Amino acid sequence: MALIVHKYGGTSVGSPERIRNVARRVAKWQRAGHKVAVVVSAMSGETNRLIGLAREVQAEPDARELDVVASTGEQVTVGLLAMALKAIGVNARSYTGPQVRVLTDSAFTKARILTIDAERLHADLDAGTVVVVAGFQGEDRDGNITTLGRGGSDTSAVALAAALKAEECLIYTDVDGVYTTDPRIVAEARRLHTITFEEMLEMASLGSKVLQIRSVEFAGKYRVRLRVLSSLTDPDMPLEEEAASGTLITFEEDPTMEQAAISGIAFTRDEAKITLSAVPDRPGMAYQILGPIADANIDVDMIIQNNSVGGLTDFSFTVNRSEYAKAMDVLNEKVKAHIGAGNVVGDARICKVSVVGIGMRSHVGIASIMFRTLSEEGINIQMISTSEIKISCIVEDKYMELAVSSLHKAFGLEQAPAK
Amino acid sequence: MALIVHKYGGTSVGSPERIRNVARRVAKWQRAGHKVAVVVSAMSGETNRLIGLAREVQAEPDARELDVVASTGEQVTVGLLAMALKAIGVNARSYTGPQVRVLTDSAFTKARILTIDAERLHADLDAGTVVVVAGFQGEDRDGNITTLGRGGSDTSAVALAAALKAEECLIYTDVDGVYTTDPRIVAEARRLHTITFEEMLEMASLGSKVLQIRSVEFAGKYRVRLRVLSSLTDPDMPLEEEAASGTLITFEEDPTMEQAAISGIAFTRDEAKITLSAVPDRPGMAYQILGPIADANIDVDMIIQNNSVGGLTDFSFTVNRSEYAKAMDVLNEKVKAHIGAGNVVGDARICKVSVVGIGMRSHVGIASIMFRTLSEEGINIQMISTSEIKISCIVEDKYMELAVSSLHKAFGLEQAPAK
Repeated sequence: MALIVHKYGGTSVGSPERIRNVARRVAKWQRAGHKVAVVVSAMSGETNRLIGLAREVQAEPDARELDVVASTGEQVTVGLLAMALKAIGVNARSYTGPQVRVLTDSAFTKARILTIDAERLHADLDAGTVVVVAGFQGEDRDGNITTLGRGGSDTSAVALAAALKAEECLIYTDVDGVYTTDPRIVAEARRLHTITFEEMLEMASLGSKVLQIRSVEFAGKYRVRLRVLSSLTDPDMPLEEEAASGTLITFEEDPTMEQAAISGIAFTRDEAKITLSAVPDRPGMAYQILGPIADANIDVDMIIQNNSVGGLTDFSFTVNRSEYAKAMDVLNEKVKAHIGAGNVVGDARICKVSVVGIGMRSHVGIASIMFRTLSEEGINIQMISTSEIKISCIVEDKYMELAVSSLHKAFGLEQAPAK
Repeated sequence: MALIVHKYGGTSVGSPERIRNVARRVAKWQRAGHKVAVVVSAMSGETNRLIGLAREVQAEPDARELDVVASTGEQVTVGLLAMALKAIGVNARSYTGPQVRVLTDSAFTKARILTIDAERLHADLDAGTVVVVAGFQGEDRDGNITTLGRGGSDTSAVALAAALKAEECLIYTDVDGVYTTDPRIVAEARRLHTITFEEMLEMASLGSKVLQIRSVEFAGKYRVRLRVLSSLTDPDMPLEEEAASGTLITFEEDPTMEQAAISGIAFTRDEAKITLSAVPDRPGMAYQILGPIADANIDVDMIIQNNSVGGLTDFSFTVNRSEYAKAMDVLNEKVKAHIGAGNVVGDARICKVSVVGIGMRSHVGIASIMFRTLSEEGINIQMISTSEIKISCIVEDKYMELAVSSLHKAFGLEQAPAK
């Protein structure tokens, strides 16, 4: 008997029938003696419908009001799932984010969770009631409704698991775990039984869309045991089997096992590259460029500055493609003339391909295998960035599938699991 | 310059375009120097869609959870209207019921408003911000979301006007005022420029669907000046003209004008009649019959008890047609044998037709004109009930239109307004 958090995404609750299936699955856990808190997303398509309505009313919807509108999607789902549970005899009670005091900052449409009041939920759970909590949403200190941004329900689930000190947080989704890369691109991709938190963080941040990155950060910070597993299995499958399925995100490397050098290949087309050329190479230059970008609430990913030639340098960075136009505007209007840069050039037709693995720490030559593989395929590398457990390359958009499949092969990821 | 509450129903906010029209109308009032608080309903069709979803999940949706789901309809509208106002340069801010502490009792799906916290709204209004408040919803003392039941947004608007001490509460709707009777039934029906609060209360409670009855009660209790007017006029029509349009619900009879005896003919098909026959005529019998009905949360309208014959009497009452089956069950299971009644007979094929008028107080013979008119049309009267300003008759369903049009003519309501 344990306290478990379940999380179901939009597809898993996409219709009344699917909601009833979720209820059966939750009921199985509750009847086995577990205390269950469930976090749900909006029914699939609903958030887009709401945002579409908002855009019909105001081309650039006011962020505070957009959150008021968008947060209703999850509110509908929690009510429906609580009903579905009651319909099969399980005590259940729904809560919106504000109702359980999911306190966030005031960054509307991409707020961050500060605290959650677990007290009321514990009282329900202790009484055997399943609590159904709306993901994606909270309220700020002034009582304004906030949302966490796309995929925020994962973060809600992990934050709730941390606040409740849950034993495990099960993220039910439409894939059955974390793969060495996307099986739609590489047919030989394998499911990983475990992945370390750091690897998962890199995989998530690099575009593997299984989990939202902030949820993984949260899990790491509060040491929440996370499992990604399928919501498409028979809801009545044996609980023990279900509890061991999917991919577990662990905190420690398992010392008894030989680590494969690389766990997976991640990739994303979500970024765009911007280069300021002929920038005077003075102290504080990076801040003068990226300060206004940060002020405009634009997240920057990779940052590269070349060696200075004749007192001038090139400065490149990548941003999310959806913020590309805004970033270009900021640079052209507020930065370029101010710092005396030569030119601002952008390119959205790029992708980022990364190899990720904790084993990189003890295996040399990963980078050279990566560069050689891409070179052999005739793929030009535009930018490189590295961390302790990943190497990322920006390459031209059209080479993405080729790069991913050749790297998957080069690192032997199609072979039987070494861990 | 005054503090004004506007209320727009589902049809008036039924599409992004209509929401933009509402914004233009509200902006006109705000720019004329008024402080404006707006109460809105869910977009037309939305509440039914949400209830339909709920029923797909649970045949008899849990009341608490149904309110969680249904209340999202209004939340979407307030966000969208605030956006539409901002899009045309008007400062605006949306609020859900819980956000402005619309405190209600815990009777889910038909809660009653206890208090509203006007403080936060006054701060916004004083700063020139239009506040947009979700109708139909509130929260109980435990922070559960509640709804007020169908048409509850009118009540929200009047309660808000009372809490804010607004000068007038304008109920914009898809009719242009209160008529002597429904123009769809009697082509000669006339719009009334004014109607007293008491008359309006009778008209509303008797089935004239212009305003929800509880909103009229609220207006009477807190002496809120109410005006019913059209939301279908040009939003840019001159403000003075708009402010004088529709029907004003007044508190005092105007002593300078000759009162017409009758203001209007109201009618409803929403009721069903139940008769317990051969009931032993003992003290406490009415309570023994109606107590279990009240316990089942069923509202009773007309109640008739005949003179006792041989120690036995007939006891009849009417309930809302939607609660007819439930009421019959209660009587058959909990009452009939217990009190030793002869039989329980129900009839849903009835209607109630009423003449309403404050002038009845000083004009005799209203009842006899009514009974004679129905008699001349060959319509049998099944039940009669009277108050100081109305006489209601239950007649067979199929005679409703005939009864209404003949009474409208008999009381000369098609003639030019005497008030």
